[in-house]
Formats: sequence, structure tokens, C-alpha cells
Amino acid sequence: MPKPTVAVLMGSDSDLPVVRDALIILEQFNIPFDVRVLSAHRSPEDTVSFVKKSDMGGVLVFIAAAGGAAHLAGVIAAHTARPVIGIPILGKSLGGADSLYSTVQMPPGVPVATVGINAAKNAALLAVQILAIKDEHLAKRLQLYKLDLEKRVREKNIALTRAGWKKYGN
Amino acid sequence: MPKPTVAVLMGSDSDLPVVRDALIILEQFNIPFDVRVLSAHRSPEDTVSFVKKSDMGGVLVFIAAAGGAAHLAGVIAAHTARPVIGIPILGKSLGGADSLYSTVQMPPGVPVATVGINAAKNAALLAVQILAIKDEHLAKRLQLYKLDLEKRVREKNIALTRAGWKKYGN
Amino acid sequence: MPKPTVAVLMGSDSDLPVVRDALIILEQFNIPFDVRVLSAHRSPEDTVSFVKKSDMGGVLVFIAAAGGAAHLAGVIAAHTARPVIGIPILGKSLGGADSLYSTVQMPPGVPVATVGINAAKNAALLAVQILAIKDEHLAKRLQLYKLDLEKRVREKNIALTRAGWKKYGN
Amino acid sequence: MPKPTVAVLMGSDSDLPVVRDALIILEQFNIPFDVRVLSAHRSPEDTVSFVKKSDMGGVLVFIAAAGGAAHLAGVIAAHTARPVIGIPILGKSLGGADSLYSTVQMPPGVPVATVGINAAKNAALLAVQILAIKDEHLAKRLQLYKLDLEKRVREKNIALTRAGWKKYGN
Amino acid sequence: MPKPTVAVLMGSDSDLPVVRDALIILEQFNIPFDVRVLSAHRSPEDTVSFVKKSDMGGVLVFIAAAGGAAHLAGVIAAHTARPVIGIPILGKSLGGADSLYSTVQMPPGVPVATVGINAAKNAALLAVQILAIKDEHLAKRLQLYKLDLEKRVREKNIALTRAGWKKYGN
Amino acid sequence: MPKPTVAVLMGSDSDLPVVRDALIILEQFNIPFDVRVLSAHRSPEDTVSFVKKSDMGGVLVFIAAAGGAAHLAGVIAAHTARPVIGIPILGKSLGGADSLYSTVQMPPGVPVATVGINAAKNAALLAVQILAIKDEHLAKRLQLYKLDLEKRVREKNIALTRAGWKKYGN
Amino acid sequence: MPKPTVAVLMGSDSDLPVVRDALIILEQFNIPFDVRVLSAHRSPEDTVSFVKKSDMGGVLVFIAAAGGAAHLAGVIAAHTARPVIGIPILGKSLGGADSLYSTVQMPPGVPVATVGINAAKNAALLAVQILAIKDEHLAKRLQLYKLDLEKRVREKNIALTRAGWKKYGN
Amino acid sequence: MPKPTVAVLMGSDSDLPVVRDALIILEQFNIPFDVRVLSAHRSPEDTVSFVKKSDMGGVLVFIAAAGGAAHLAGVIAAHTARPVIGIPILGKSLGGADSLYSTVQMPPGVPVATVGINAAKNAALLAVQILAIKDEHLAKRLQLYKLDLEKRVREKNIALTRAGWKKYGN
Repeated sequence: MPKPTVAVLMGSDSDLPVVRDALIILEQFNIPFDVRVLSAHRSPEDTVSFVKKSDMGGVLVFIAAAGGAAHLAGVIAAHTARPVIGIPILGKSLGGADSLYSTVQMPPGVPVATVGINAAKNAALLAVQILAIKDEHLAKRLQLYKLDLEKRVREKNIALTRAGWKKYGN
Repeated sequence: MPKPTVAVLMGSDSDLPVVRDALIILEQFNIPFDVRVLSAHRSPEDTVSFVKKSDMGGVLVFIAAAGGAAHLAGVIAAHTARPVIGIPILGKSLGGADSLYSTVQMPPGVPVATVGINAAKNAALLAVQILAIKDEHLAKRLQLYKLDLEKRVREKNIALTRAGWKKYGN
Repeated sequence: MPKPTVAVLMGSDSDLPVVRDALIILEQFNIPFDVRVLSAHRSPEDTVSFVKKSDMGGVLVFIAAAGGAAHLAGVIAAHTARPVIGIPILGKSLGGADSLYSTVQMPPGVPVATVGINAAKNAALLAVQILAIKDEHLAKRLQLYKLDLEKRVREKNIALTRAGWKKYGN
Repeated sequence: MPKPTVAVLMGSDSDLPVVRDALIILEQFNIPFDVRVLSAHRSPEDTVSFVKKSDMGGVLVFIAAAGGAAHLAGVIAAHTARPVIGIPILGKSLGGADSLYSTVQMPPGVPVATVGINAAKNAALLAVQILAIKDEHLAKRLQLYKLDLEKRVREKNIALTRAGWKKYGN
Repeated sequence: MPKPTVAVLMGSDSDLPVVRDALIILEQFNIPFDVRVLSAHRSPEDTVSFVKKSDMGGVLVFIAAAGGAAHLAGVIAAHTARPVIGIPILGKSLGGADSLYSTVQMPPGVPVATVGINAAKNAALLAVQILAIKDEHLAKRLQLYKLDLEKRVREKNIALTRAGWKKYGN
Repeated sequence: MPKPTVAVLMGSDSDLPVVRDALIILEQFNIPFDVRVLSAHRSPEDTVSFVKKSDMGGVLVFIAAAGGAAHLAGVIAAHTARPVIGIPILGKSLGGADSLYSTVQMPPGVPVATVGINAAKNAALLAVQILAIKDEHLAKRLQLYKLDLEKRVREKNIALTRAGWKKYGN
Repeated sequence: MPKPTVAVLMGSDSDLPVVRDALIILEQFNIPFDVRVLSAHRSPEDTVSFVKKSDMGGVLVFIAAAGGAAHLAGVIAAHTARPVIGIPILGKSLGGADSLYSTVQMPPGVPVATVGINAAKNAALLAVQILAIKDEHLAKRLQLYKLDLEKRVREKNIALTRAGWKKYGN
Repeated sequence: MPKPTVAVLMGSDSDLPVVRDALIILEQFNIPFDVRVLSAHRSPEDTVSFVKKSDMGGVLVFIAAAGGAAHLAGVIAAHTARPVIGIPILGKSLGGADSLYSTVQMPPGVPVATVGINAAKNAALLAVQILAIKDEHLAKRLQLYKLDLEKRVREKNIALTRAGWKKYGN
């Protein structure tokens, strides 16, 4: 089995239904990855050792999903110089603004590459884009992925034209 | 010199003008304290070792001031079981909502006692209230402080009545 | 029966399903407590007399849960010099921002230790942390509680590894 | 001197520059009024006794100005059945949303008639409108006031037409 | 049948489930009232003529409920010098902030007495408070209403004590 | 079949249930229109060519519906000098503020005529209003539409009076 | 002098410094226009008669600028079937969210074409775009305007390249 | 001169004072870069051709700075499969929430790596982190940069201890 190049951390196992979208993309692009439940607050030392071990073990990109005072991505970014991607998780209050602000508003010197609220799929695609910097094959697959996105929109238009706007989707 | 019972941390030395209000209160109540610039993101290991050393050295309450993705209080709370008080610092964007949400919206199991945006004075008073749990003398001084707050309001009313609302404050 | 050291107030009995999480923690840590429905607005005098009586009767920490223009914690803090912990309760509008701001943005001199929106469990843990200032046994139990939090995260990782991310939780 | 029918309270004397606009209106409509600095948090008992004394002494409308966790209007409304008008005061953070939400989001049973952020003039006009319920002379003066508002807008249009939009106001 | 002293307007008949709480209170206090669906935007002239006719016909207080760009209360206030109470109605987006801001942030000279989002009951109580300015009998009933609020809170405490917090409400 | 004068674009086919309200209005006013699923991000070149082709083909008004970082209307406005109407689509987070701000806050030189969140019906009516600038028949139909809005409000009042507020709508 | 085809209304003459940007554009495109200070709340009847008179007199597009509970555009839209463009004016509180929401969140049936906060220039350009529907000459000038925007960006790049990013703008 | 591996775009030359922080970092890490003023709305075709040319010319990371309806990063991401970093620029209204939401809330399939509001320095550091994926020398320099951040915090503590909190910074 190849060594993981991406590590995916989530603050709570209740984040997994959202995070799964990221894992599916990583699998689809054949990116070997590790996935862990690790809390910046409840298991800080496990988090830091996992980050350090991963960093030394060849992980090139970290993805962190957390909600509320979403510190997980920030804590990872504090312990590695590798790119860290943050997924703010939508909670029950504040419409996700808490998770978003806690993830993105990092101080100078320690960036977190933040994607949209619950946007796990985009987090994974961003990780693949980053890895593709050094992997031309991956870069080409991403271009195909982009073409496929476009193609699907076209197919929807054909379906829409065929069904008519009154019936489409019913 | 007595051992510090309160440790005050700020994420950046630019927070000191706000944090000073806390230190003045601690001094006024004769609480021995330590003060440090320690960043959850730029100096995470120094932060953790300072928290652990303080904890073992007899610090009973932590105060943390930070802005933006304000993780400092949360990181401290992850490494000590002592009460941690968070002061969200107002930045240039989002009206302080980022700092407030990042400080207060902690996950179950790891509370941060959050005070208002830039409310350093209240952070220190809360620390004194906590210490007064085991110090009857301090508890009495807090009651006097409360009476003094009331007295000052009364004095302002006397001044307002005397000057009249048209002239007061001019 | 031991005298209560914590008093838990809620603005409305509809807050009880949230507040229960706090009471469970207090019970778990063997903290004797009082619980009351007392409204800052509908029963202000009962609230004040209860606060004063509790204060004189040995209550060391107050916990207040309220939503909307959440004044309950502030009213308590106005009448006691003991630490007051505020739980902002999520309502149907404004995503809880109203409750949070009304609880946390206290004026200089009168702090409220605010926890996250609906974070009743954390309110109770903060109360226990405060009481542990003068109770080494409690302080040790809190450390065990922290270790237990960490342990549970570890167990989830083991379960996640065992089940695999595709099947975990299904 | 006639007995006051309106009582104006502000949470801090720093609110006076805003509150003055209310007092000018009350004076202009010959409404006898009391004005006090009284804090819901720093001088809660003075606040309550002033409210009760005013209530029994013939005050028919209360106006309260406060910022942050703006509880003053709510505390007054808890102790009188007379109409209470709240002026949310703009602070340095959160754009005044904290003051507004704390003033307006009152629980069922205890209304506060809230005006706009810093809208002291409107608070006083609302008080006059309420008093005019039982004072036909006042009601007529309010209608004249309304006509005058309209007239001033007309005068501005005349001035704008005369000066032209390029020069007007320079 | 007595002439209405309160007129209740709602911007859409979909607001009636919320507004009903106001009508129940008015009925309970024997306040004769008119109720209409009148839109500031879809039926502006009917709205204005109804306001003027009501004003001349003896209506002393207006209550307006509207959501979104909630202009109804403002339009009424533009055409009468009587007190106008605004109820911001919660819609599907923005958590009710749109309705609240559109109702409360009125320009100098034209106040709207705003209550909380969906707080129809409080709007009616405020109307009763205003009418009680000139009706001592009503003023006394309001004091009884206040006592009753207090009593109900007491009863809830008795029930809570009896059932215990574990069983209460189940 | 007449050439389309309005082009309706939506960023995703999941927006169609909202957008349908616009299409019904266009049909009702006999406006020939094109409808497409075209994404500013997933099919940018198809979007631009469709906009250019439509522009040259006689489309006079564009309507764009999109959610989140809602760039579709802005992208269209970048490629045509015809009026572009933006419909911000409500998503699961941030209460629609993201869609609204992304649509309306356009830079100087490139306006987007923004309607309310999910307000597809209004977008279509605005398109009809714009087309009516050069079509007196359409202008008259819009006046009838306005009268009809008024009439329906009147009918609701009659129904409300007849049923009484207690029974109406049940 | 030609009859005005655009009418520009502002809620207060303090809005003129912002609104001027719109008037400059209208002048630049040789659009005859009327400009008035007219308040939805202080001079509602003058506003309505001006709107009706303008409508009958040949005005084809209305522009309204207002802040706070910004009802002006909505009131105009209630009295004309012509397109109404709303400019939300930034005030001192709430970051302009109050003006934006009050302008854009119109009920079904009565659209307001809203531009960005303080975006007076875009309001005027949108008016020109609308008028260009029936004026090919104007449509061509708008295309030239668009080309000019592009050209200016190019010139800035040339200047940036020439000066270098370190010196540019100093 | 080496071929640029990073392209920095800003929506307006008024963003340069913020963007400069990014350019200084890129220079410091010897990253060859291009910098352009290119507007998603005013010069959309120049933007797209620059992105495509850069992409084919070897640019591996894009950085885009824009404010308001900040579409620039999104437009770039629509035309390249390389990582795109977005810097939301703070404007005069909405506290930067408009720029942040427009940049980060991208639809599935097209990520933008968003940094904090005005956080140009972090955008550049993130670009360097991404490039360091395939450049061990760069990776090492980033680790030194991290150590340097830590060292500076330490130096501030020494200075703070030396000067004392009363005098530090004065």
C-alpha cells in the first residue's frame, strides 16, 4: 500500500457524513490518504503527534474539518509547514459563520486554505490540485475532471430542453 | 515575590493596550500574575509548555486575549483543567464577530469563559471572582468594588443634577 | 443533604432540555446544586431574592440560561460578586446571535463568563473547574475527565480504522 | 415645577451626547422629565427604586438608553407596567447589533418599544406620541411637527433646485 | 359595538398565525380593534386611506406586522402621529434580520415602536400599556397581568421541584 | 416562434424550483424567453458564448439565479451591456447573505439589478417592466397586474372580515 | 429642454454626496433627469404625487437612494409600474446591512432593482442600460463605455509594469 | 529572468497597498511572479486570456485579491485547474463579509483556497507552501520561516519582561 500523501482530520466523528465527500474524491483520484478523528481541544497531543508523524512520513497536504470554534486546521497549521486546508462545518447556530471565521481568519504567518462551509468535496479537489503541482498525470486528470463538469452541465441543458422547464425534475 | 496565581497570555503584543486594563485590575487586587505574548499559531509549543509549567507551578486561572481566528484561549483550555477566560480582541473586519465566535463556541468538554469584545477589565474581575472562591478576604474586596461601582454611578447623578443635562460633560 | 454550591437558573422552563446537560455534569461530579425557573423580566424580584439568598447560603457559582434578550445572567451578576456563567439559548431567529450578544457584551465592572450557544455541558464543567480551585479532589477528577475525553477520541479512531470510513456510523 | 411624566435613564454618562437629542425634543414639547444615569448592572437597586418611585410619582413613560448587553430597558420593563422605550446605543464592535438585539428581543409578556440604533430623537417623539393619547393639545402639536418635517423637505427641494445638484451643500 | 381604539395591519394573510397572538391579548383586555390585511407595496392607497380613516375615527394605536423589506409600520407612521408598533415577521432567509432592520431603523422624526421578531403578543401588550396611560382601570389590569406572569413562574418552580429536573416536562 | 427577448440562466438545475416562478410570469406576459443551466464556474465558456449569442440574437434582458459565491449574474454583466437581473438563491448556510452579497456588491461600472433572496417572481416582473419601456401594451398589462395585486388584497380583507380572525385560514 | 426620462430621489440631502455619482453618469449619457429630496416617511404625500406626476410625465426609470429602514424605493415601486432602482445608503451602524435588506427584500409583485451599498454610479448605469432597450444609439454608447472600462484597466497594467509594484501609486 | 510560477491578480489598483504584503513574501522566497490589475467584471476577456496564457506558460499557483462581490478568484478557478488562492479585500461596508463570502462559498467542483480578509501575506505563504511540495529547498526555508516566527515571539517576551507591561510599547 502506498504511503499517504494526504491526511484528513475531523474534529468529531459527527463530521464524517460531510467529510465523506472529500474521501470519495481522494479515492477517485487514487490519492493515498489517512483519515482520523482528532480534536484540537479534546485530544490536542494526539493531534500534534499525528501531524508531526504524518509530516515526517511524507504527507504533503492536510485537510481539517471542524465546526464551532473550529481550531483544528489552525492547530495543524501551527505544527507543519505543509499546506493545510480547512473545511468549516455547519452547526446549529450562527449559520456556519462561527466555523468559517474560526477557520479562515488566521494571523499573519500561518495560513489556512479555507473552502466553503461544508465544502468537503472542494477541499479534496484543492488537495489534488496542490499535489498535481508535482504530478503531471494528476494535472491532466484534473483537466479531464473540469471537462467532465462542463459536460454534465451541457447534458443538463439537453435534458432541460427536452423535458421543458415545466416538467424537468418532476 | 509570591507565586503567580493568574497567567495572562496575549496572541500578539499589539493586544497589550487592551490587555493592560486586565493587568491594572489584577494589580489593584494584589493578585500575583504572569504576562506573556504567546501565539497559538506562531509559537504553539512555547504556549503549551508555558501553560503546563504554569499549571504545575500553581496558576489557578488563565486569561487569554486574541483576535481573528482567536484560538489562544481554546489551546490553553485543551492543556489545562483550570478555568480559562477568553478576551476576544476587536480587529479591523467583521466587527469582532470573528474573535468572539472563535473564542466562545468551544466544543463540549472544553469550556472557555468568554467575556465581551475587548473586555479585558471584566476578564480580570472574573479571574478575581474565581480566586475569591477560596479567599474570603478577596470576596469582601469584590463586594466593596461592587459598592464602589454603585457609588460612582450615584456621584455621576449628583454631578448631572448639579450641572444639568445641557452642560454636563462639556 | 449538603448545601448547594451551584445555583442553576433558566429564564423559561422551555430551556430545560438544553439545561439538563449541565445538571447531569453537576450530578456526575457530586456538586450539590439548586435549579430554578426564574425570569429576569417576568419574576425579577424572585430572581433577585433567590440570588441574594443563595449567595448568603453558600452558593459559590451561578449558572444562568436564557434566550433572546438574554438578561438573566446579567441580572444575577448585578446582585452577586460570585462568578456567573451564562448560557445563551438558541431561539428561532437570528441564529442565536441575540442570546449570545445579550449575555456576553457586559459593561466594565460586571463580567458574565459566557459559554457557547446552548453549551450547557460546558457551563457546568466551567462551574466545576471554578469549584476545583479550592478542592484538590475535584481538580483531579477534572483531569481524569480530560483524559477520558482523549480516550474516547482514541476509541473512535480505532472504531473508524476497524470499520473503514465507508461503513463507520452506518 | 410640574411633576415629570417621562423618566429618561442612560446606562452610562458616555451615552449623554446621544441621549441629549431626546431631551431637546421633550423640552421642545414642554414635557416635564427626569434624567438619570442608572446602570442595570452597576447600580441595579438604585435603578429599581428609581423606577418604582417614578412609577408611583406619576411618570407615564420610561426611556432607556444603553449599549452592548443593553439590559436597562428590559430591567425597567420588568418593574413597571408603563410603556418603556429602548434606545440601543452604538458601541465600537458588532455595528450596534448587540445593543439592538439585547433591547428588542424581549420575552413574551414584557415588551420594550425599541427605536433605531442611537435614535434618541425618535425615542422622545414616541414618548410624546404616547402622552398625546390623553392630551389633545399635544396631539395637535405632533401633527404640526409632522407638517414641519414635510415643510423642511420642501425647502430643501427649493434650495436644491435653486443651487443645482452640482453646487448644493458646497 | 365600541369604536376600535387599536388597528392591527398585516402585510400578508400568511402573517396571521403570528399576529393572532396579538389579537388574543387585545380581546383579553377588552380593547376594541380592527384587523386588516393591507400591504405597503401591493395596496398602498388602501393602506393610507385605512390609516387616515382609522386615525380620524378614534384609533389611538396602530400595530403593523410585516416581513422582509418590512415597510408597513413605516408607511403607517408616515401618515399618522399616533404611536405605531411594528412586529418584524421572520421569513425564510437572513434569520429575521431583514424584517427587524426594516422596521426599527426609522429616520429621525418618524418613530416606530419595534418589538422582537414575531413578538405579536408583546406588540399587543405594548398597545395596552399605551392605552392604559389614559385608563386607570386598564393600568390596574396590566399590573395584575404582571403579577400573573410572576405567579406562573412560581408555579413552574413548584412543579419543577415536585417532579425533579429529570422528570419535569416528560 | 418569436425570438427570445429574455434569457434566464441558473447556476445549477437544483435552482429550478425557485426559478420556475420567474418563468411562469414571463409566460403569463407572453415574453419569449430562453432558459439554460449554465455555471459561471463549471461551464464558463459556454456561459460566455451563450450570453454573447443571446445578446446579438436580440435578447434585451438577462436573468441569472445562483447561490453561494453567486457569480453568474456578475459574469453575464461582464459580457453584455444589457440589463442583468440577479436572483440570490438561498443555500443551507449563512441565511442567504452569501448569495445576496455576491450578487449585489458589484464594482463601479458593471451593475447587477438584484432582487430579494429567492425572489424569482420579482426578477421576471422587473424584466417585464424593463421591456415595457418600449412596449406600451406591456406597460398597460403591468398596470393591470398592479391593480390585480391590489384587488387580491381587498378580497383577502373581505374573506378575513367574513370568516373573522379566529377562523380565517383554518 | 427635453422632458426627464429618469427621476432621482434621495431620502435626505445628506445622501447627495453619494448620489452625485449617479447624476454625473446620467449627464454624461445625456439623459434628461429630475432630482429631488423626498422622504418616504417625512414627506410621503409629496413623494407619491411626484412619482405619479413623473410617471405620467414620461419618466421611464426611477432611482431612489435611502439609508436605514430604506423604504423610499419600495414606496416608489408601490406607485408606479416603471422600473425602480434602489441605492442602499451606508449609515453609521450595521455596516449598511439595514439599508440593503430594506431595499432588496421586497415582497412578490413589487420588485426593486437593487445595486450595491452606496453604488450610485451603478444605479445610473443600470438606468441607462434600461433606457438603451429602446435607444440603439444609447446601447452603442454603453458598449463604448464598457470598452473604455477595459481600456482603463489595461492602462493601469501598463503603468504598473512601468513603475513596478514597489513604486506604483506612491 | 526565470519564468513566473505564481501569478498575482488584483481586481483594482486600489488593492495594491494590501497586495504588496504578498509580493514582498514572494520576493523574499525568490519566487518569480507576475502581477496584474485585472477585473473579473471590467476586463473579463483580458483576465481569461492572462489566466490561460499563464497556465500554459508554467504558472503553478494563482493569487487573486478582490473586494465586494469578489469574483476574481472564482473566475480564475473556472479557467484553470491549478490552485487558486483568494484574498477577500475589506471594503467600506459589511465589514468584509461580502468579499469573504463571495470568495469562499464556491460551488462543488471549483475550489478557491481562501485566506483571511486582507490577509495578503498569508496568501503568498500559502503559495510558497504549495510550491514547496515539489521543492525541498523551499520546504526547508518555510521551516526556517516558522522557526523565525517563533523566535520573534520569544524576543517580544524578553522585551516585555525587560520593559514590564506598564512601559512596553510606549
